[in-house]
Amino acid sequence: MSDALTQLVNSSKEAAVLQSIEELLNWDQRTLMPPKAAEYRAEQITLLSGLLHEKITDPRRGEWLKELGESEVVNSDEDAKVNHQRLLRQFEKESKVPRKLVEELSKTRVLAHEAWVEAREKDDFSAFSAYLKTIVKLMQEKTQAIGFETCAYDVLLDDYEPDAKSSEITQVFAGLRDELVPLIEAIQGSDKKPQSEIVSRDFDVEKQKELGILAAKQIGFDFDAGRLDTTHHPFCTTLGPNDCRITTRYFKNHFNTAFFGTLHEAGHGLYEQGLRKDQFGLPTGEYCSLGIHESQSRLWENMVGRSLPFWNYFYSNLQSSFPETLNEVDVQAFFGAVNQVEPSLIRVEADEATYSLHIIIRFELEQEIFNGEVTIDDLPDAWRQKYAKYLGVSSETDRDGVLQDVHWSEALFGYFPTYALGNLYAAHFFDAADKAVGGLNAQMERGEFEPLLSWLRQHVHQVGKSRSATEILVAATGDNLSHTPFMDYLRKKYADIYDI
Amino acid sequence: MSDALTQLVNSSKEAAVLQSIEELLNWDQRTLMPPKAAEYRAEQITLLSGLLHEKITDPRRGEWLKELGESEVVNSDEDAKVNHQRLLRQFEKESKVPRKLVEELSKTRVLAHEAWVEAREKDDFSAFSAYLKTIVKLMQEKTQAIGFETCAYDVLLDDYEPDAKSSEITQVFAGLRDELVPLIEAIQGSDKKPQSEIVSRDFDVEKQKELGILAAKQIGFDFDAGRLDTTHHPFCTTLGPNDCRITTRYFKNHFNTAFFGTLHEAGHGLYEQGLRKDQFGLPTGEYCSLGIHESQSRLWENMVGRSLPFWNYFYSNLQSSFPETLNEVDVQAFFGAVNQVEPSLIRVEADEATYSLHIIIRFELEQEIFNGEVTIDDLPDAWRQKYAKYLGVSSETDRDGVLQDVHWSEALFGYFPTYALGNLYAAHFFDAADKAVGGLNAQMERGEFEPLLSWLRQHVHQVGKSRSATEILVAATGDNLSHTPFMDYLRKKYADIYDI
Repeated sequence: MSDALTQLVNSSKEAAVLQSIEELLNWDQRTLMPPKAAEYRAEQITLLSGLLHEKITDPRRGEWLKELGESEVVNSDEDAKVNHQRLLRQFEKESKVPRKLVEELSKTRVLAHEAWVEAREKDDFSAFSAYLKTIVKLMQEKTQAIGFETCAYDVLLDDYEPDAKSSEITQVFAGLRDELVPLIEAIQGSDKKPQSEIVSRDFDVEKQKELGILAAKQIGFDFDAGRLDTTHHPFCTTLGPNDCRITTRYFKNHFNTAFFGTLHEAGHGLYEQGLRKDQFGLPTGEYCSLGIHESQSRLWENMVGRSLPFWNYFYSNLQSSFPETLNEVDVQAFFGAVNQVEPSLIRVEADEATYSLHIIIRFELEQEIFNGEVTIDDLPDAWRQKYAKYLGVSSETDRDGVLQDVHWSEALFGYFPTYALGNLYAAHFFDAADKAVGGLNAQMERGEFEPLLSWLRQHVHQVGKSRSATEILVAATGDNLSHTPFMDYLRKKYADIYDI
Repeated sequence: MSDALTQLVNSSKEAAVLQSIEELLNWDQRTLMPPKAAEYRAEQITLLSGLLHEKITDPRRGEWLKELGESEVVNSDEDAKVNHQRLLRQFEKESKVPRKLVEELSKTRVLAHEAWVEAREKDDFSAFSAYLKTIVKLMQEKTQAIGFETCAYDVLLDDYEPDAKSSEITQVFAGLRDELVPLIEAIQGSDKKPQSEIVSRDFDVEKQKELGILAAKQIGFDFDAGRLDTTHHPFCTTLGPNDCRITTRYFKNHFNTAFFGTLHEAGHGLYEQGLRKDQFGLPTGEYCSLGIHESQSRLWENMVGRSLPFWNYFYSNLQSSFPETLNEVDVQAFFGAVNQVEPSLIRVEADEATYSLHIIIRFELEQEIFNGEVTIDDLPDAWRQKYAKYLGVSSETDRDGVLQDVHWSEALFGYFPTYALGNLYAAHFFDAADKAVGGLNAQMERGEFEPLLSWLRQHVHQVGKSRSATEILVAATGDNLSHTPFMDYLRKKYADIYDI
């Protein structure tokens, strides 16, 4: 390795170590930390963030990147080439944002988050709107500072879905929306309904935990290199190349939350555990995009976990654990119950069919905000209109409307579309794996998930950020991004459950 | 505050933040971390240790200390004066140790620890002795670099029991030993024995955990500012002024381990939770010495937790939790069972009466090593002779002999005596609190531990490192350190149990 490359790699890996320590502080805070410790934890995280920022913005990184760009190394070594490209792009992008703006954004985020918590509690959008205006203004400044070809929103998107363009996403989402709305209407119009109360019966929490762990192990999550813990707002985080922590929450009378939540986070975890460990801290060992990340969680949660073949295999475990609760419930009835479709107000509780519409609403609103087509003051009404139009539901409160998500208070604009992209990528990947491996359904019925995981490891996980999401998709499936595989998947699933 | 004082205080507090983050990494490693994560955890800890070392040895600290020494502040503000004195002393001491020696010691410790683990497993002292020789040699160099008036061992002691002198400890321990040996002989010669098998019956682990938490709460451990978790080698650690984590381990057929272990660590925890929170990271908010720390754990574990008044209060909880196990066992029998005395080979399993002898053996051997009176090669035999002489037991293996403790492999010479000092301090404190508060026994029978805790808070915890251990002892009790209160306590306890 050239000297500049060694320096750059070491600096990136040290930054990753600091980042991973910060993740431990965050994980601990959200799972186990005693309540009175919160104040000092903020001091710990602040100090570490400062050290991390210093490391990342070390001006020598610019010199190493420049030197490396002129050297032969980046042409002879594929990993070096990718890392150089990605790190250079990141460095150039971050260098364009004035430090003052970064600091102002950090400060505003903290205040806006607090204001959002209070506004949501009091169902008072006006108590939050001034902060949201400031955040939007600062984010607009940021997009100006970074610069863009077509639209400001692409700059926002780039933080979460690198290389994606909003025009392309708009087109794909339009196709998705146009087919989702009639599908949901057909489902609602059907006389056949799954017996949804089954999943609201009594499910002992300890047993739920055991089953979640069993299922996560079955699909391949390595508990020697990870853990499952309990939290209020579930997440997956990585504290090192062999330390992936997933979390969930348990409700005695909501079976779906913990079980599918665990599979969802385990799906994220499988991706993290499948990244190249020797490249930890470098783009070559990093996840590609949030959309690709979400495709892994959705695939394992829904295409595997909510499938009939999975339950044909796994249902006996449930019946043993909850013999009274599931007395006389056959697997077909249970499969129907976990796949109920019902338009609702709250995104995080939405089913597979309606979920993407929640995302499309947010994606449209975010674009309108940044295009100046909607003002912040008009946002609550715009929100209601879109929910009425796409989902046929309307919230009386803003708490269950425009105030429901944390993202905007944390300036996470451009983040939402990755959730729906995840669904679309997942359907592409599942179909391609099924073709390549052959008979995934039959394998799942036998509890064999390794062939699917291996395919994902090879075509997605091990690629890391070496390729863009689109490149991964094309190389792995031969397809360009489309809503069709996902819609086909949904139609097939609901055909029988709802007799449509 | 003067500028130098502000800088010094900020620098010390920042060092404490880094230290507390390192404690989180350690705590997580010893309680929850998945096994495969160990390698990367070492990288995280190494990086943080480096940052901490940089912070502590910042040469500007020397300048601030010097400037402050010449200012008026240190004379007008009691806290500033103490902090200046303690930090200056620490800085001067550490500055005397060459960096090369520090690094060599760090490296050797890692290797020696690994060698010790293996040597102990194979019961092969010769596989460890070369490392131990190197460690002793390096520690001798360290004592030479720091310098001393009377003996090298005092320098070692100073890291754990600041201001203590080995000549004084030797004298106190001699008195202790001379009275412990005949007491233990009398106990062994007695025909009356407690029914010790009671505590080896079946005790459900979950119930043990609940009872441990209940007892820890009762004595005042704040679970909103701390946690109890499970580990192999129990410890107490502080991750912030309101974040004290205690740990224990559970055995179904050994009641004592978890219950008294929890009280022991909760005793350490009460001390940590009782330190001045606004002084966190400064000597004024730091524990005084390991001997004083151990006095708090021993006091709550033994003088409270192993007392008849405590069990008169608490025993009904046990009987409710283990109705079958404790069927027909009255409180007097249970009290006897948890206080059984039996000379044995292993320190960490020793009872209250024999424990200090294990410590005295190590203290004598450590002095002999550093005085050149015993060679490392002769250590296993010297160990055997002392165990035969003081405890009347002899180990066939070195695994249960000279290789049993981790301390020497980590260069922790001078640490052991603080364990026995803790017993002695504890007896002094308990007597003084009893006199000051009046009727501690009657209060404990009613489950009232607050008066005792308040006394300790005022006379020990809130003092921090503002005074030396001896100064705390004299101010709180009027006594100089002596073995008499501890021996009186033991004799009184065993008089009835063993009819002596």
